[in-house]
Amino acid sequence: MAARFARPIAIALGDPSGIGPEVVAKCWDSRARFGLPPFVAVGDGRSVAAVWDGPLAPIDNVEDADSAFDSGLPLLHVAAAEPTVPGSPSAAGAHCSLDSLELAVGLARSGSADAVVTGPVSKQQLYAIGFTHPGQTEFVAERCGIAAANVAMMLAGPSLRTVPVTTHLPLAEVGRALTPTLIAARGRATLRGLQRNFGIAEPRLAVAGLNPHAGEGGALGREEIELIEPAVAMLRSEGWQVTGPLPADTMFHAAARSRFDAALCMYHDQALIPLKALHFEEGVNITLGLPLVRTAPDHGTAFDIAGQDRADPRAMAAAIRMAAECVANRRLAPAP
Amino acid sequence: MAARFARPIAIALGDPSGIGPEVVAKCWDSRARFGLPPFVAVGDGRSVAAVWDGPLAPIDNVEDADSAFDSGLPLLHVAAAEPTVPGSPSAAGAHCSLDSLELAVGLARSGSADAVVTGPVSKQQLYAIGFTHPGQTEFVAERCGIAAANVAMMLAGPSLRTVPVTTHLPLAEVGRALTPTLIAARGRATLRGLQRNFGIAEPRLAVAGLNPHAGEGGALGREEIELIEPAVAMLRSEGWQVTGPLPADTMFHAAARSRFDAALCMYHDQALIPLKALHFEEGVNITLGLPLVRTAPDHGTAFDIAGQDRADPRAMAAAIRMAAECVANRRLAPAP
Repeated sequence: MAARFARPIAIALGDPSGIGPEVVAKCWDSRARFGLPPFVAVGDGRSVAAVWDGPLAPIDNVEDADSAFDSGLPLLHVAAAEPTVPGSPSAAGAHCSLDSLELAVGLARSGSADAVVTGPVSKQQLYAIGFTHPGQTEFVAERCGIAAANVAMMLAGPSLRTVPVTTHLPLAEVGRALTPTLIAARGRATLRGLQRNFGIAEPRLAVAGLNPHAGEGGALGREEIELIEPAVAMLRSEGWQVTGPLPADTMFHAAARSRFDAALCMYHDQALIPLKALHFEEGVNITLGLPLVRTAPDHGTAFDIAGQDRADPRAMAAAIRMAAECVANRRLAPAP
Repeated sequence: MAARFARPIAIALGDPSGIGPEVVAKCWDSRARFGLPPFVAVGDGRSVAAVWDGPLAPIDNVEDADSAFDSGLPLLHVAAAEPTVPGSPSAAGAHCSLDSLELAVGLARSGSADAVVTGPVSKQQLYAIGFTHPGQTEFVAERCGIAAANVAMMLAGPSLRTVPVTTHLPLAEVGRALTPTLIAARGRATLRGLQRNFGIAEPRLAVAGLNPHAGEGGALGREEIELIEPAVAMLRSEGWQVTGPLPADTMFHAAARSRFDAALCMYHDQALIPLKALHFEEGVNITLGLPLVRTAPDHGTAFDIAGQDRADPRAMAAAIRMAAECVANRRLAPAP
């Protein structure tokens, strides 16, 4: 049983009308090729059967996932109140995605599952049924009792990891939302996450500037001087290896990437443009700063192609694989 | 003489203390491997001799460049008032870089040279001697009698071309600097430039949003609705193929790039991050909207490595090659 996890990874299927069920099923189909450990799907089994002809293995206890995994896709069934249709989001589907998330996170929190991987949900649909968190990341953080400012959303591909300090804000508001404390908190969560989840004993963080040419000494904006440099100084004084603020446009070519383990970015597109330009099909979203391992594929529900057998499972496979790697690294690393 | 240009490409060497002289000389060394047409260096011959052991071929008339090209690097000597030192910028060097630029542009304007390629200059040094243009692009535009708003700075690599609408502005000011008229003017210059310089009869332009997720219908910012959509409508009403505003983070992976010929970006780093992430060693800056062809390598003076034989000539070679391709395409394309 060496190199085999007895506890599975719990995968919340996300919105049952999106591509979540399809990509998870395709990952089971290609589990050997993708090199995936045992996992259990958490969601409405009908949403999987609607888009996939393979064998489902419904289970009642998560302990049975490991032994069921070879014969079919282990499933903890979470029934939607009404049947859902691929490509047609509904309130029932949104409720089901939330119940699935809650159950999957609970399994990871209780130690019944090794980690949680979350499939894509529709924020619009969730908001419509009263979901009050900005996204799944904040929901998971709250369930773990961690303040949102102390977690970091990392986007990771084979040759680049980025962490945005701010996320879903109008660009004009980014400067006002940045504070040295917030930048340092995200940087700290990133550095600790690199140690704990990625097994990097002495992680190197590169911090991007906000303005072109990182402000060029104040001529093109003062946020670098007033907000970012103090945060970098704070982190350095704690003994971390931190460079920056650096001009963002020259941070992401191969030679530059080799000089850091993660890039701390000031806004959404600064982190996501390079990540998706380089690693669109295999980008993984991992939440750092939690007591558990949580990853997600870096794509949305893609309602427009749901149910057409066109969804690419590579990002979901990368998310599952990265969750397993983080679990293994955390077993080796000392707890914080 | 088929496939051979009788008129050379004029290359202003840029700051004589930067890496311009070295990369131009290395391009002559590797002219066959890089597939370069005849060119003439315009600048201080001593700045080349200081960093290169190859044969210089000083000429007095640009007409002699073609015949001299096989025996040495043709040079139109522009003497600096005082000798310059690699890695040590000086006022004399800045004056020399400006005189070289003026002469090279004049050769292209008069038709004695086919195109102008500009080596890297130090803006700081140029401002210190009274240069009043933001950069070489605006200088060349003025010498050609074109308003700066009607030219577009395109960054081009093998698989991506981007054009920033705004350039050297603090990020917080970008929204205020954008107007539908400016966005449309840059888009128009880009589309015409794709026809004229790149021989693309029916060019496709993708326009990026400013905010994350292109504003998500106004929830994450209103610039898309108030500024960018009107500009896109304006261009479409003129018959151009334009898509957008699109979420910037999903515009730059391979499949997305295949759907447009150029991306119109709202700010410096939105255009430069993807370009340099994908094509750092071979990015070319080309000015669209001019009566002449002007390209430049997308790197700076790199004073810190000047004179150490460490400069990479690939971007300069790409700039020379792209200039030649644009000249050939413009001969085939109808004048606007």
